Amino acid sequence: MAEVLFKRLVLIGIGHIGSSIARALATVPGTVERLVICDASPAHLKRAEALGLGDEYVADPAEAVQGADGVILCTPVGSFAAIAEGIGPHLAKGCVLSDVGSTKQSVLRDVGPFVPEGVSFVPAHPMAGLEFSGPDSGVAELFKGRWCLLTPPEGAAPEAVQKVEALWQALGARTVEMTAAHHDRVVAIVSHLPHLIAFTICGTADDLADETREEVLEFAAGGFRDFTRIAASDPVMWRDIFINNKDALLEMFARFSEDAQTMARAVRWGDTAYIEDKINRSRKIRKSLIDIKQA
Amino acid sequence: MAEVLFKRLVLIGIGHIGSSIARALATVPGTVERLVICDASPAHLKRAEALGLGDEYVADPAEAVQGADGVILCTPVGSFAAIAEGIGPHLAKGCVLSDVGSTKQSVLRDVGPFVPEGVSFVPAHPMAGLEFSGPDSGVAELFKGRWCLLTPPEGAAPEAVQKVEALWQALGARTVEMTAAHHDRVVAIVSHLPHLIAFTICGTADDLADETREEVLEFAAGGFRDFTRIAASDPVMWRDIFINNKDALLEMFARFSEDAQTMARAVRWGDTAYIEDKINRSRKIRKSLIDIKQA
Repeated sequence: MAEVLFKRLVLIGIGHIGSSIARALATVPGTVERLVICDASPAHLKRAEALGLGDEYVADPAEAVQGADGVILCTPVGSFAAIAEGIGPHLAKGCVLSDVGSTKQSVLRDVGPFVPEGVSFVPAHPMAGLEFSGPDSGVAELFKGRWCLLTPPEGAAPEAVQKVEALWQALGARTVEMTAAHHDRVVAIVSHLPHLIAFTICGTADDLADETREEVLEFAAGGFRDFTRIAASDPVMWRDIFINNKDALLEMFARFSEDAQTMARAVRWGDTAYIEDKINRSRKIRKSLIDIKQA
Repeated sequence: MAEVLFKRLVLIGIGHIGSSIARALATVPGTVERLVICDASPAHLKRAEALGLGDEYVADPAEAVQGADGVILCTPVGSFAAIAEGIGPHLAKGCVLSDVGSTKQSVLRDVGPFVPEGVSFVPAHPMAGLEFSGPDSGVAELFKGRWCLLTPPEGAAPEAVQKVEALWQALGARTVEMTAAHHDRVVAIVSHLPHLIAFTICGTADDLADETREEVLEFAAGGFRDFTRIAASDPVMWRDIFINNKDALLEMFARFSEDAQTMARAVRWGDTAYIEDKINRSRKIRKSLIDIKQA
């Protein structure tokens, strides 16, 4: 048996990430004594029960968190404020509250005010996830070897931070701490901007004259196909991410936009040296990624 | 033994595509009686010989094409005009000249004037290729199930077109004919624009403050990692593609740019309905791709 990290852990939201946590926990029995699953959707909750993802299934978050020593918010970040307000008064002393949201300054802003005395708030962001949704889409191995970024607010209890780190390490992830502001800039460039671009280019293709659009689908080559994979993600989750990481995302987009316009200008005027230099830099980045085994 | 399509076929350029054709031909013996390999790089030519990719290895294109009934240009499209000028006077009557370039109006413009009486020019574009270069990078299965787009100029001899189609089908590809102008628009959106974007975002990331850049590499998530794969392509090949499909690429880039700016504006002003709608359309495109088995 593994070390018991939580006696009663509540997952609020049993979508792709929530159900992946549940499945991963099943591979390390004993880490959590009792897993409580909570979801606003009766269909999701019923399905989670049919799949046997937890030990208890509760619709109401305020009821679910009673007596829990661990709670993880696994819903889209746009829902965090309302959920935090609802569960805040019901959190037990000593409870560790965490989340899996992709934006961290917004989480501090939305959840922070509702965290009562004696409860530790330790935001976390597992950098993993496929383009699927719902309780059926969870994958036990999802977090293996992936990073989980922790952004504990100043003054967070070290033992609470340690518990959240230990949980993610038990699920196979590597953990690292950083500030929420720094986190938001990093994910804006590695994840949020690429998604914004992928969603956009799919729409651009979809707007082409009917004839060309069908051919876009028929002849979808390497480039476009790779873009559509990441463009197939959950609309509500990504809408919330964009809105809640607006500042960092818009800054990265502005930088990208300037660079793309400069590249377009080089194409128009035949500046071959500029184009080659940019492509060579891309290859170097790719090589660095392979070297550190992220690719 | 398969039907003999060419008695003496010359591949000019033995990089990723050329060496993939050579390897694919080895799996359908008899389709080509004698395969001649020609490359301006002595190192590539020597390596091709060491790998046994052909039956004959010739450095000079004008010499290589003597007596050939088939010639395929497999070098970057920027080199086509000079090569065509050099080999034109040496092409035998009845020879079929083709290529594998990713831009087709430029190929008609650059090669067309040098095609002598009695020689048929049938441009082709196999929609396949990995991010690797050189004679070692060829893959025999590269064209299996992929599209090869043919853009024969008006008045091309039907039997010459048929021969090129039959060759690509022998290598496992599906073939379709279209005009060069139409081809260039389709590939601009499915391939050239995604590559321009991928090269750009890698540069944008590389320009970030050193601290963040290292983290970009370390935490590269799904989005960015997928972009770097296609950004690792050959600089000279892609420089030539951009320059030679300038008009279609810049038009698609302008459309994308407007759409991306509109998305950024929706993020800034919190227009959630717009964002969700765009993401939903992306999912539909992805679903269509899966339905037609391109993804």
